[in-house]
Amino acid sequence: MEDCLATLRFSDDGLTDGLEEAMRYSLLAGGKRVRPVLALATARALGREATEVLPIAAAIELIHTYSLIHDDLPAMDDDDLRRGRPTCHKKFGEDVAILAGDALYAEAFRLVLTRQQAEPAHLRDALAHLAGATGVNGMVGGQWLDVAARDVDLRELHALKTGRLIAASIESVLLLSGRDAEPWQPYCSELGVLFQIVDDILDVTGTDAALGKHPGSDERHGKRTYVSEFGLGGARTMARVSHGKARAALAAAAPDGAPELSQITDFIFTRSS
Amino acid sequence: MEDCLATLRFSDDGLTDGLEEAMRYSLLAGGKRVRPVLALATARALGREATEVLPIAAAIELIHTYSLIHDDLPAMDDDDLRRGRPTCHKKFGEDVAILAGDALYAEAFRLVLTRQQAEPAHLRDALAHLAGATGVNGMVGGQWLDVAARDVDLRELHALKTGRLIAASIESVLLLSGRDAEPWQPYCSELGVLFQIVDDILDVTGTDAALGKHPGSDERHGKRTYVSEFGLGGARTMARVSHGKARAALAAAAPDGAPELSQITDFIFTRSS
Repeated sequence: MEDCLATLRFSDDGLTDGLEEAMRYSLLAGGKRVRPVLALATARALGREATEVLPIAAAIELIHTYSLIHDDLPAMDDDDLRRGRPTCHKKFGEDVAILAGDALYAEAFRLVLTRQQAEPAHLRDALAHLAGATGVNGMVGGQWLDVAARDVDLRELHALKTGRLIAASIESVLLLSGRDAEPWQPYCSELGVLFQIVDDILDVTGTDAALGKHPGSDERHGKRTYVSEFGLGGARTMARVSHGKARAALAAAAPDGAPELSQITDFIFTRSS
Repeated sequence: MEDCLATLRFSDDGLTDGLEEAMRYSLLAGGKRVRPVLALATARALGREATEVLPIAAAIELIHTYSLIHDDLPAMDDDDLRRGRPTCHKKFGEDVAILAGDALYAEAFRLVLTRQQAEPAHLRDALAHLAGATGVNGMVGGQWLDVAARDVDLRELHALKTGRLIAASIESVLLLSGRDAEPWQPYCSELGVLFQIVDDILDVTGTDAALGKHPGSDERHGKRTYVSEFGLGGARTMARVSHGKARAALAAAAPDGAPELSQITDFIFTRSS
């Protein structure tokens, strides 16, 4: 995945290479690449080659990177560091960071629309799902719930903010392959829940380098997390229950087995970074 | 067009209705709707009903609105007023305004992907063009050239920042209809140039209500405009030349005539607001 992301160029004629530099600075800052890895593993679970879905897998990581850049902005979480390096706006200025995020989202769609091989009708369905998962009823809506600090259920907030893009990493590949995503929905949404619970635990117990942000960052921001709501022990119990549910839902969705998705599900539960 | 835009809702279950409120505040603030009107007129020039392309026409106005919200942000142009009303961030806060812009772009794609009737392959081509016109090599790239204040040709800057979305309002409907956009390219790009020259003239000569921003706003921001570079007389001459070129290019692209597009071309030249 790293090789694929590293080869991506966005500026056609070099005129906007400075904008591309800011986009690539954040895109290539490392990270676990959970979302594209899920997309590739889904292709394999369907008997396809992982390489066949590289464009949409990369596009999902572009979208994730855009969300991190905008979340870090002074008007949002106001974070100076991410993965031990200055955040995009600290490095390039706030104006360039806003535009780098905007551009990553546009280029994610362009990448899929120009490079992803698929039946056009399936491509449309996959992209419609991805647009929905990242708009008002998905990622951006969840971020709005977070900053607007309304009296909203924590699971509901994270289902939108984090869960829908995690789920879409799997669902968009199913749709792209002309498959019904419905039987996979319980697995996809549970995986999003599991990911967020573990993320909240790691915010308290993890290290800066591993987390990609300051430990206790969410706590410092006064954010409501699974740990702040249920305590560290409570959150760990919830993670264990969620992991079991996710494994069971995966077994129901893929009765013939999906070894790579099983492994990633376990990794999301047990990861210490 | 106003009726169509006014009926748009984005939040599926009301959970994120506050975000939708900020989006609709900016979307329904008026304006000339030049881009969607161009899209509808293009459909008619191809012998289609204008109503057949309403979703993509509306989506282009959503994208234009998103660009205005982000351009107005404190880190960008730092404008307090637009069309005589507080800008989105003045009304809802900077965090909500950033997210309202982000969400408008996502919902624009969702709108086309879920509501626009077309051959799936044509839909893909139209959207690929729209993504390209609004990404690194289009609108966002042009805005970056503007804020990064590099030594770039003014025409090149505006070709990206304004011109590509104006052009895409026509080109995306051609592609959606399975037509070759190539013969229309000279008209589309000249129309973008004409629009920007007149915009720069109106920034100096127009009124607040007509312009939708303070008169002299670009001047105050120290921006390079056609007027600042060539003087008011020079800019007016350039507008006249550009209008003639656009009319000739339209006649070449549509030898059987395209009365509505001709009218809009004239309106863009002669408008006083």
